[in-house]
Amino acid sequence: MIRLLFSAPAGDWPVWRPHLERACAARGLDVAVSDRAERPEAVDYVAYAPGGGLRDFTPFTRLKAVLSLWAGVERIVGNETIRAPLCRMADAGLREGMVEWVTGHVLRHHLGTDAHVLGQDGVWRHGIAPPLARDRRVGVLGLGELGLACASALAGLGFDVAGWSRRPREAAGVVALSGPEGLDAVLARSEILVLLLPATPATEGLIDRRALALMPPGAALINPGRGALIDDAALLAALDAGRIGHATLDVFRVEPLPPGHPYWAHPRVTVTPHIASETRPATAAEAVAENIRRGEAGLAFLHQVDRAQGY
Amino acid sequence: MIRLLFSAPAGDWPVWRPHLERACAARGLDVAVSDRAERPEAVDYVAYAPGGGLRDFTPFTRLKAVLSLWAGVERIVGNETIRAPLCRMADAGLREGMVEWVTGHVLRHHLGTDAHVLGQDGVWRHGIAPPLARDRRVGVLGLGELGLACASALAGLGFDVAGWSRRPREAAGVVALSGPEGLDAVLARSEILVLLLPATPATEGLIDRRALALMPPGAALINPGRGALIDDAALLAALDAGRIGHATLDVFRVEPLPPGHPYWAHPRVTVTPHIASETRPATAAEAVAENIRRGEAGLAFLHQVDRAQGY
Repeated sequence: MIRLLFSAPAGDWPVWRPHLERACAARGLDVAVSDRAERPEAVDYVAYAPGGGLRDFTPFTRLKAVLSLWAGVERIVGNETIRAPLCRMADAGLREGMVEWVTGHVLRHHLGTDAHVLGQDGVWRHGIAPPLARDRRVGVLGLGELGLACASALAGLGFDVAGWSRRPREAAGVVALSGPEGLDAVLARSEILVLLLPATPATEGLIDRRALALMPPGAALINPGRGALIDDAALLAALDAGRIGHATLDVFRVEPLPPGHPYWAHPRVTVTPHIASETRPATAAEAVAENIRRGEAGLAFLHQVDRAQGY
Repeated sequence: MIRLLFSAPAGDWPVWRPHLERACAARGLDVAVSDRAERPEAVDYVAYAPGGGLRDFTPFTRLKAVLSLWAGVERIVGNETIRAPLCRMADAGLREGMVEWVTGHVLRHHLGTDAHVLGQDGVWRHGIAPPLARDRRVGVLGLGELGLACASALAGLGFDVAGWSRRPREAAGVVALSGPEGLDAVLARSEILVLLLPATPATEGLIDRRALALMPPGAALINPGRGALIDDAALLAALDAGRIGHATLDVFRVEPLPPGHPYWAHPRVTVTPHIASETRPATAAEAVAENIRRGEAGLAFLHQVDRAQGY
């Protein structure tokens, strides 16, 4: 009998429970899933999302792994009471949803769709056709699972894509750069820039005044990654000055974004309420069950977090 | 010396001339391009777009082909003074632009982007995630060069795509149906429907009350094809009733769409001013030159119109 504790906001439990039980059973695993840790010393695995109240893992003395239900682990990676391996969520549904959202918003900026959605005033403005995607330079910061999938999809649609990651990566159809000089090169070429970096001490405020000043005039910024990647004051100043043409922001330092935050009212900003992509229980439960299977079989966990790097 | 007459609105001539001359020279063709037919009996080819004033082709006694600069030939196919072959434009730039526009607007409807673009009111509405593309059924009516390219791109993004054409076609990753029963099946399954059929007597008003009633409640209609495909009164009634959730319309029976037309003010309609895609002179001139090369070499023309079918 393997004991899995589900620790997440209370409303999530009835949604996830049948998916977790089904995914474990499908792998022949005899798993008891519970949302209560009456005997923490008997728990083998914890499926974790912030908001479930669990902070002190010390009593979980036989814990084999903490399996995050979120792709972003910045709210748990610094928890020093966790001695067991910590794994990020890498979920097919999360990845597909992110590719769809990013592709949709890159095309929205590329095509200038908002002018039509907001401007149904009876005036026929034919204007000049936008450049083709092959002549549009898009940048993706972060070439982890999500960034790589987005960069590949955008390249598949013909965009001239460059990506950046801290460590060198390879990606078919994408110019993949790394290191500080690579970052500046991607910033300087990106008419549309997508942020898909993890939130770590090294990426905190990465998109600051200096970074924004490197971007082409009128560039669009799309952030479905993490709110802390952006220096908000610097972005607002660049938007006010028109140096950045538009920002579509899905994640924020404080969520929900407070009603009085200047992003809401800024004509060059589109706020979306952290919807770019979500862990979907049906597919994500498979990822949880698969890591339990691997743990029980003595195999390395998938998507284990490097605590020193923070992701 | 091959004589090519350019017949199109006057403003197009200075734009196209250098591209046509370059594309012909690149093929080693000795072509004199002119926008005036001083000696029609000496003209070998006509590059044609509506609006240039040319209607009577009778004096062009040695004409080898009429090469349309537009993909849609409904305004010239019925011209009985043309005895020479008539060829449609099939331009890489036109195709790529169409794929980008269609993909962008399908994703816009799929993701529900307008709610955010139009609703920046300071209220954080997280809501339920939209289905993944794999669970979203998209239909493409018309599997010619443009429809096929769009259907393939949408399938590549994961959408559950079905296409329909009058004659049976095959398309990788796409359920391709044909005939009247196939049309009804595609209509009945399409949560998002894209119209890329040619305007012919057989497609006139194809999207009528009956067709709209077959579609799933709340479906979105996207028309970058031809205005005459739609029975406008039937569409407006379906939109008023909410049976059709939204229509994004790029082409109309009368263009520019008159300022007083009910489409402009309808909350469920987005009008775009015939911008979905355009023939781009740099790439389209290559298509014109290539057909001249083929004609001179005694090869069959590319994209020759079947006058009986009208496209």
